[in-house]
Amino acid sequence: MDIGLIKELKENYQIVFHDINLLEQAFTHSSYVNEHRNLQISDNERLEFLGDAVLEIQVSDYLFRQYPNLPEGKLTRLRSAIVREDSLSKFAKECHFDKYVLLGKGEENSGGRNRASLLCDLFESFLGSLYLDQGYGAALKFIEAVIFPKVAAGDFTRELDHKTKLQEVLQKNGDVSIEYRLVAEVGPAHERIFSIEVYANGNLIGAGEGKSKKLAEQDAAAKALQDLEA
Amino acid sequence: MDIGLIKELKENYQIVFHDINLLEQAFTHSSYVNEHRNLQISDNERLEFLGDAVLEIQVSDYLFRQYPNLPEGKLTRLRSAIVREDSLSKFAKECHFDKYVLLGKGEENSGGRNRASLLCDLFESFLGSLYLDQGYGAALKFIEAVIFPKVAAGDFTRELDHKTKLQEVLQKNGDVSIEYRLVAEVGPAHERIFSIEVYANGNLIGAGEGKSKKLAEQDAAAKALQDLEA
Repeated sequence: MDIGLIKELKENYQIVFHDINLLEQAFTHSSYVNEHRNLQISDNERLEFLGDAVLEIQVSDYLFRQYPNLPEGKLTRLRSAIVREDSLSKFAKECHFDKYVLLGKGEENSGGRNRASLLCDLFESFLGSLYLDQGYGAALKFIEAVIFPKVAAGDFTRELDHKTKLQEVLQKNGDVSIEYRLVAEVGPAHERIFSIEVYANGNLIGAGEGKSKKLAEQDAAAKALQDLEA
Repeated sequence: MDIGLIKELKENYQIVFHDINLLEQAFTHSSYVNEHRNLQISDNERLEFLGDAVLEIQVSDYLFRQYPNLPEGKLTRLRSAIVREDSLSKFAKECHFDKYVLLGKGEENSGGRNRASLLCDLFESFLGSLYLDQGYGAALKFIEAVIFPKVAAGDFTRELDHKTKLQEVLQKNGDVSIEYRLVAEVGPAHERIFSIEVYANGNLIGAGEGKSKKLAEQDAAAKALQDLEA
């Protein structure tokens, strides 16, 4: 067990494992086990199975409460964006987990230490080990430190369309009426351009254009969001 | 809200909702909302999003602890069998949830009340509402009453191959050495039949035959399981 990992977990996340074997297992890739059969150690795959489900409920619970107006389809899309391989492998790197995972030689030589799928599994297995060692609350605390601030900062809401995002931003602190008004249609039928304005509680907050009403509404919402976030 | 549901939940599962609106929402299908827009009620889809994740962690945690020797791939297969549409719709029916779901007329007339996908979603939305109303422990208690006894009774372990199942059964209460011995090979090369015996801690517990060693081992394990369960 690399002492560096124990130190980093303590300093960066105030995590100290009771059962250090669990932490060790979380960082043991199957390729390492295969090359060290005499050690009789277990790989991290069962912990990954568990950690995957821990992550799923904690992210779901957070999104459900954080986005009270978002319909199920969009919640699902947002959740998928957060827990997908690409995202989790980045979280694993930010936590420096890639430095500490035990790999077999073959896996190491073929670049496993930087492979997204391996790092994603590693992130989940760590979460599974933390959940087993210290329970739901400790796992949640870690997720709150590593993932939720990025969700709150909008790193994943690009998955949402502009109109939905605008609605979420405006209605965060209560009900706000949002209205899209068609203010102009110009050009011949096959090249028509629509102009739309968007109002919040009757105040103009953005205007946009597009080749259909839908596209013009999305454009207006995007402009309003730019102004709101500026 | 049907008083029958409130009664059944109390009598069968000792569940009494604090916020009856949550329970009502869990039993409100989108088709009902669409036909009663004046009521300004919400459908159960967001609760289903949440309940799905609650179910996933609770089943995962149970399987992880219950099957300490099962590799990740088989845990995943078992979990999928438990949480799939077909299984959850049966649980919903056993709880009589189909009697109480609010449907639009179109959905009702097209047989929605018996549709597996609708009942599966209903089971998940109920679980989501219970989790919100009373927390993780109450949701777990319900799952422990409705789902886990069926898992323990082997309703889903047919998803596992016989050798794995035998291993799980034998090693439930501690380490048992399992050995497969080839005792005969008969017939010409293209029609060879293999005979295998399986031993637990040195005692013969089953014998099987097959066209390959693998098939003969599976057959021997199946025979041993039959005897064990008889």
